Amino acid sequence: MPEKVLIYSKFPKTLMVRIGERFELLDAAGKQPGEVFSAEQLSTVRAMITAGGTQLPGDVMDTLPKLAAIVCYGTGYDGVDLAAAKERNIAVGNSPGANAASVADLAVTLMLTATRRIIPADAFVRDGSWAASKPSPLLRAVPGNPGRRIGIYGMGEIGRKIAARMAAFETEVGYFSRTKHDLPYRYFDSLERLADWCNVLMIAVRAGADTHHAVNAGILKKLGPDGYVVNIARGSVIDEAALTAALQNNVTAGAGLDVFEKEPHSPSALAALPNVVLTPHVGGHTTDSHAAMQDCVIANLEAFFAGRPLEYPVR
Amino acid sequence: MPEKVLIYSKFPKTLMVRIGERFELLDAAGKQPGEVFSAEQLSTVRAMITAGGTQLPGDVMDTLPKLAAIVCYGTGYDGVDLAAAKERNIAVGNSPGANAASVADLAVTLMLTATRRIIPADAFVRDGSWAASKPSPLLRAVPGNPGRRIGIYGMGEIGRKIAARMAAFETEVGYFSRTKHDLPYRYFDSLERLADWCNVLMIAVRAGADTHHAVNAGILKKLGPDGYVVNIARGSVIDEAALTAALQNNVTAGAGLDVFEKEPHSPSALAALPNVVLTPHVGGHTTDSHAAMQDCVIANLEAFFAGRPLEYPVR
Repeated sequence: MPEKVLIYSKFPKTLMVRIGERFELLDAAGKQPGEVFSAEQLSTVRAMITAGGTQLPGDVMDTLPKLAAIVCYGTGYDGVDLAAAKERNIAVGNSPGANAASVADLAVTLMLTATRRIIPADAFVRDGSWAASKPSPLLRAVPGNPGRRIGIYGMGEIGRKIAARMAAFETEVGYFSRTKHDLPYRYFDSLERLADWCNVLMIAVRAGADTHHAVNAGILKKLGPDGYVVNIARGSVIDEAALTAALQNNVTAGAGLDVFEKEPHSPSALAALPNVVLTPHVGGHTTDSHAAMQDCVIANLEAFFAGRPLEYPVR
Repeated sequence: MPEKVLIYSKFPKTLMVRIGERFELLDAAGKQPGEVFSAEQLSTVRAMITAGGTQLPGDVMDTLPKLAAIVCYGTGYDGVDLAAAKERNIAVGNSPGANAASVADLAVTLMLTATRRIIPADAFVRDGSWAASKPSPLLRAVPGNPGRRIGIYGMGEIGRKIAARMAAFETEVGYFSRTKHDLPYRYFDSLERLADWCNVLMIAVRAGADTHHAVNAGILKKLGPDGYVVNIARGSVIDEAALTAALQNNVTAGAGLDVFEKEPHSPSALAALPNVVLTPHVGGHTTDSHAAMQDCVIANLEAFFAGRPLEYPVR
C-alpha cells in the first residue's frame, strides 16, 4: 500500500502526477489540512509536500500528529518555521538547485525585457501606434549592455547562473553575499556599496529575517535614476511600497519582478506602471525544472519512508 | 562653411544632432529629395545619409547630380541599389558592427520573452487574472534552455554575438552560413538541415535576393511544433504570410520579430497572436549603438570630404 503524503500548498495538479504514482496524496490545495480532512485521516500522515514560500507554522504541524517530514517543492523554505519543525523532530527537505537554471533564465529575461522596454514596444506595434507614427516617449534609445554594471545580491546556485549569463552580454558583474567566493566577479562587502556601484540590481538572495526589506528606499537611491531592479527571489526582500514610489518618481528607472510581498499579486500602483515587467512567480516554471524538482521531492520522500535521512535536507 | 549632406530616410532628429554639428543637413525625412528641396539646393549635394533598409534606386540618385557618397546609418545596405551606385561612381559606406551588440541583445531578449511567454504573463498579473486564480493555458510550464538547440542563420558579427550570449544559457548552438567558420558551434551546410536540428531559429543573415523568403513554410515545418523563430535581420528573409499561418495553426510554437516585410508594421493577423513578441525595428536602438553608428557616419563623411576613400566602405 502506498504511503500517505499530504499536499499543503496549492499546486497545479499536473505537477503532482509523477509523485501521485508513487504515494497516496491527500491534497489540501492551500487550505488548512483540518478543514479538508478528518482528524482520523490526518492521524496517519507522516510526510507533507509544501511550497517553500507558504507559511507553515508549528500549529499546523500539530494537526498532523505523526508528521516527521516536510518536503519543500523547490529551493525555498522560508515559509517553514524551522525552529518549530526541529522542536517536533520533523525533518525538512528541499530541492536545491533543481530550478536554478530556470530561475536564472527568468531573471535575465526580466532584466532584458525591462531595460529594452519590450512590453511597451510590443504594445506600440500591436495597437497600430507604430503604423500611425505616434510619438513614443517610452521608446527612446536606452543604454545598451556592453559595460553595464550588473550587481547580484546573493551568490548561491541561482546567483552564479545569473552572473554567468549576464557576463556573456559584455557587462561587468559584481556581487554582495555574506561570504566572498572564488569567482571572477567583483565582490562588495555590503549591499549599499553594491547598489552604489551597479546599474542593475538583481536579487537572488534567500528570504529570511536578515534580508527582509533589505532593498529599501535608501538602497534604491544609491542605485540611482538609471537603475533597474530585478527580483526572482522572494517579495519580502524588497520594500514594495518604497520601490513603487521610486518607480513612480523616477528615482528608479524600471523593474522586473517575478515575486511580490503578497502573492498572488493584485493589480496595484505597481501594475499601473509602464516601466515594469511583472510575472506571476514563474521563475521555476519550466518543464525541465519541474521534472528536476519532482525528482528531489520523490528522492526525499523515498529516503524518508525507507527510514533513511532525507536525500536533500535543509541545513 | 560646413559641407552639405542630404538626409534621405526618416530619422528621429535626436540621432542627427552630433552629425549636424559637423555638416549642414538637408533633411528630406523620408520624402523624395525633389519634393522637399529645389533642384538648385540639390545641385551641390555630394553626400547623403540613408537607413540601409530604405529603397534607394538609381533614379533618386539622379536627382542629386553631384552625389558621390551614400552613407548608411547602420549595418544594412539592402535598400541601396549597389549596381546603380557603381554605374554612377558613387561610393557606398555603412557602419559595420557598430550595432552588433545591441541587435544581438535584442535577439536574445526576443527569444527569451517569446519562449517564456512574458507578454501574456505580464498581462496576467496586471489585469488581475493571477489574483483571481483564472486558468491560463498560455502559462503552462514551458521547456527551459539547458540543452535547447539554438540555430543561427548567418554568422556575421551579430550572429557571433547571438551565439556567445545563447551559449551562456547552457544551450547547444548550431549555425548555417555560406562558409564554415572557425567557431565552437556546430556547422550545418543548409538552412533545411539547421531547421531540422534546432528548436529556435534565429535569423541574423543579410537581406538580399539570395535570402528573400528563405524562411518559408517548408523550413517552418522542419523546425517543428516546439520551434520558435526570432528575426532581427530584415523582414524580407521570412515569408511572413507563411509564418503567420504556421503560428495560427501550431506548426510553429512562437516568434519574436523586430523586423517585418512592410515597415512600419500595421496591426495584422500576426499582431493578433498571443504567442509572438513584436518590436518596432529597435534592434540597434541603444544609446551606445547610436553613438557608434554616428561615429561611423561621421568618419565616412569626413574621409569623403577630405578626398579619401570612405572609412567603412561596403564591399
